[in-house]
Amino acid sequence: MAGDFVYSHRVQFYETDLMAIVHHSNYVRMCEEARVAWAHHHGLMDYQKKEAAAHFAVIEVQVKYLKPCFFGDQVEIQVQGKMSGVRIFFQYKLIAVNRGRELVALAKTSHAPLDENLKVMRPLDEMKTVFAKEGQKWTETWL
Amino acid sequence: MAGDFVYSHRVQFYETDLMAIVHHSNYVRMCEEARVAWAHHHGLMDYQKKEAAAHFAVIEVQVKYLKPCFFGDQVEIQVQGKMSGVRIFFQYKLIAVNRGRELVALAKTSHAPLDENLKVMRPLDEMKTVFAKEGQKWTETWL
Amino acid sequence: MAGDFVYSHRVQFYETDLMAIVHHSNYVRMCEEARVAWAHHHGLMDYQKKEAAAHFAVIEVQVKYLKPCFFGDQVEIQVQGKMSGVRIFFQYKLIAVNRGRELVALAKTSHAPLDENLKVMRPLDEMKTVFAKEGQKWTETWL
Amino acid sequence: MAGDFVYSHRVQFYETDLMAIVHHSNYVRMCEEARVAWAHHHGLMDYQKKEAAAHFAVIEVQVKYLKPCFFGDQVEIQVQGKMSGVRIFFQYKLIAVNRGRELVALAKTSHAPLDENLKVMRPLDEMKTVFAKEGQKWTETWL
Repeated sequence: MAGDFVYSHRVQFYETDLMAIVHHSNYVRMCEEARVAWAHHHGLMDYQKKEAAAHFAVIEVQVKYLKPCFFGDQVEIQVQGKMSGVRIFFQYKLIAVNRGRELVALAKTSHAPLDENLKVMRPLDEMKTVFAKEGQKWTETWL
Repeated sequence: MAGDFVYSHRVQFYETDLMAIVHHSNYVRMCEEARVAWAHHHGLMDYQKKEAAAHFAVIEVQVKYLKPCFFGDQVEIQVQGKMSGVRIFFQYKLIAVNRGRELVALAKTSHAPLDENLKVMRPLDEMKTVFAKEGQKWTETWL
Repeated sequence: MAGDFVYSHRVQFYETDLMAIVHHSNYVRMCEEARVAWAHHHGLMDYQKKEAAAHFAVIEVQVKYLKPCFFGDQVEIQVQGKMSGVRIFFQYKLIAVNRGRELVALAKTSHAPLDENLKVMRPLDEMKTVFAKEGQKWTETWL
Repeated sequence: MAGDFVYSHRVQFYETDLMAIVHHSNYVRMCEEARVAWAHHHGLMDYQKKEAAAHFAVIEVQVKYLKPCFFGDQVEIQVQGKMSGVRIFFQYKLIAVNRGRELVALAKTSHAPLDENLKVMRPLDEMKTVFAKEGQKWTETWL
């Protein structure tokens, strides 16, 4: 997977539930962390500009849970993104590095660029440029 | 939809994000609330028994976001459940009652009954009985 | 405590942590739920108006945990509010109704009315009126 | 503050609320992150041992909010811990590094060592050793 963007997340105590594993809703948040870091890395997420977040408004989420995640786990999240028309897609592999790099979950999200008033807008040119390049890495569908 | 189980959730301030809408991960939590209430309603969720929660361990989640949800919204969540082999399925319709009963999201989840040690177990007889009856209401797939 | 505003919260699965009890940060959220319901009950919280939330911007929080709270617990939250100058104060008693009305936590919060741009503003007249009346119930400090 | 333990937290999108600032309950979680990292750094938090978390069961939390925190902020959290009898205390300074090292909040927490069954236990010798040394840095009370 050379070239894929990788984000690292340490599982926090407050992310666990009474089964003593990470609550399933928190995988959605881990994916967001990784996606935001990806966008920031590629110059598409200026934290100071509130509208930047809207450009990646979530319209669909899917997570497949393969193995539980535990308190203190070091989770590596591989991210790939592509754009098709006015839709943006991301896919994610979540790997517990500290447990033999076990694959713990797969996920994918769909997005539509919105403006500050939650109206659909045309993707910015810089988005098109980044996704045109990054989208080429998306050669297989993980989930 | 006569006969469907309906759960009601008031959107809390802490569920919103900087777009001033409900954060997308919180729909997963709303579905859990509705599913737990469904299971409790049908005698399958004894809060005092920790293993009861494990019986509905989540193995897949999918949410489709149709319209934003806002602080104070009264969200009605319609729930249907069915069992197929050792897999349990739920589907959900989220409706903002206070905004003309607008459909805001559709979701579905898959589950495998686990025991307290996170090992797959046979579904309990009482689960089979409930799902055999309730599964008959599942005549169309929402998502 | 006749006359105190009472809010009811059912403990959700996603509010627990690996100790199998409600995570301590979620008491802060339960208090917010109760405070918002209090303000809504007294006509001070119009969910549609974003600035309404700012009028109760939190500047200090204190929670004392007396007993653990468990999944499924029915928590009754008693709320009292008062205003002193430009400061608003709330205090809370959290009681597990389903476990012999055990007192599980005490909390208090301080607030400053802010406008939409996070600037301190004068309290609205309707706030003064409500707090003048409600503040009279605050005859003892719980925490 | 030479010698203080410092933890770094990047503010995530899902930590914000509709005021476009970090929700006040999430400061409690940031403090937990910093405290766990402190305990891990000092050999007191073995993630694999569930009981390790219980040794720092929270019995009181107090947070004073001085300035808002925003999406993307790089928050530095300074932590000090001390033990007095069977009570453990931590204090925290939260500083927005990216905004001129602005002090955004102060916090303190109290803890009692519990065993796995939530019963009070004697502090372990290794805890006493660490706190005896680290407690000497606590020369002033921040909140």
